[in-house]
Amino acid sequence: MQRYFVKNEQIQKKHIVILGQDVHHIKRVMRMREGQEITVCDEDGSVFLCKIVQLTEEEVLTEIITSLDESSELPLEVTIAQGLIKRDKTEEVIKKITELGATSYVSVQMERSSIRLDTIEEKHMLRIKKIIKEASEQSRRNKTMQHLGLINFQTLLTMSKDYDLACFAYEETKTNHALREHLSNFHGERILVLIGPEGGISSKEAKLLEQNGFVAVGLGKRILRTETAPLFVMSVIGYELEMREKQ
Amino acid sequence: MQRYFVKNEQIQKKHIVILGQDVHHIKRVMRMREGQEITVCDEDGSVFLCKIVQLTEEEVLTEIITSLDESSELPLEVTIAQGLIKRDKTEEVIKKITELGATSYVSVQMERSSIRLDTIEEKHMLRIKKIIKEASEQSRRNKTMQHLGLINFQTLLTMSKDYDLACFAYEETKTNHALREHLSNFHGERILVLIGPEGGISSKEAKLLEQNGFVAVGLGKRILRTETAPLFVMSVIGYELEMREKQ
Repeated sequence: MQRYFVKNEQIQKKHIVILGQDVHHIKRVMRMREGQEITVCDEDGSVFLCKIVQLTEEEVLTEIITSLDESSELPLEVTIAQGLIKRDKTEEVIKKITELGATSYVSVQMERSSIRLDTIEEKHMLRIKKIIKEASEQSRRNKTMQHLGLINFQTLLTMSKDYDLACFAYEETKTNHALREHLSNFHGERILVLIGPEGGISSKEAKLLEQNGFVAVGLGKRILRTETAPLFVMSVIGYELEMREKQ
Repeated sequence: MQRYFVKNEQIQKKHIVILGQDVHHIKRVMRMREGQEITVCDEDGSVFLCKIVQLTEEEVLTEIITSLDESSELPLEVTIAQGLIKRDKTEEVIKKITELGATSYVSVQMERSSIRLDTIEEKHMLRIKKIIKEASEQSRRNKTMQHLGLINFQTLLTMSKDYDLACFAYEETKTNHALREHLSNFHGERILVLIGPEGGISSKEAKLLEQNGFVAVGLGKRILRTETAPLFVMSVIGYELEMREKQ
């Protein structure tokens, strides 16, 4: 069933109002009518089965039939931080890690980034938001992923204290087993993983990361491209921490 | 160091002859000269450190300095079978699973494939070979992945007997834990994983697969796109079976 994400303020007692681009999607793309059902998720990850009661030019009014007890979210929060990479690669990564359940993504200004920006321009952020929304709907998530924009390396360093585990993928590390050890012993709520840009993480950056509570991990014996590494990380986090609970 | 893959017949006692596109790559792209070193892998996965001794229009003659004792191959063979999907998606999947260590990839004619082909045309196979070669070099593998072409569903069904574990990703399955159980108890040498096309695997196909020794596995709580599922599978196989050995 088609899934839409709304702000909490769009929810009234027994009704949910669909606004913006979603109106076009329901009316023109899905060609839905009064009486048909959709799934709606709020900002807290609650899911509602709703019936369309009225379609106008600006909004689609729906009635809540029931609240659905379903969760497709990982049992922890994962933030992927990545050295600033090219636009198309950023989009590819964001699309895939949204599907794989990431909580948030942040771009980091790093020494070996092939591009220099002070900020991600508004237009690109809007495009990214659209990609996240579509991937969240398609993969049937309860929440959409958050893009936290672009930060500098100093800010990243201070972030580790907000996480139960902060690590960085470092091909120089010889400890191919470290990631598995950290994940299989993990019982916290928040993980932060930094992936370097195309040119990798410099030894100076690696030193600073370690001094600030980040642990170096390898991602296997092969050298992964920067756009592949986040997918590997999200996959194995899901495997280790979601699939370990018997269902 | 730049890495090239050669056929065993290109290796003489103390010399390796580089031919074809690689000659152009060494001379024009890398602009290498006599005396410079490259890494060369043969068909069995052996790796040699070589010195360029002569460059002509048709070939680059190198001398073997030493055989390198390095392996970046997974400790098992993994074949990804996938319902025939669009060309650009096939290429994207192949590029990424080559990086992630897959042994081979095969396209399968399935009920819900959005495209119909009897065979993958020569031109596309050549393009795929190039993608595999580049991804193998970049990720520093010892062997290149094999593309086994396009087979029909009946042929796929008979393949399970050649593998120690054959499974198919099936979103209808309620056993989210099955993949992990099978992988963590795996001590064989060959795994085959089928991923459905965009439209998924039909219930008729699922039944036939199970009758022919394939086990249904879920890939987590979210619905992965057909082009994301193989990356998830390759990542968790690496995590479970490569990283379980302490190094």
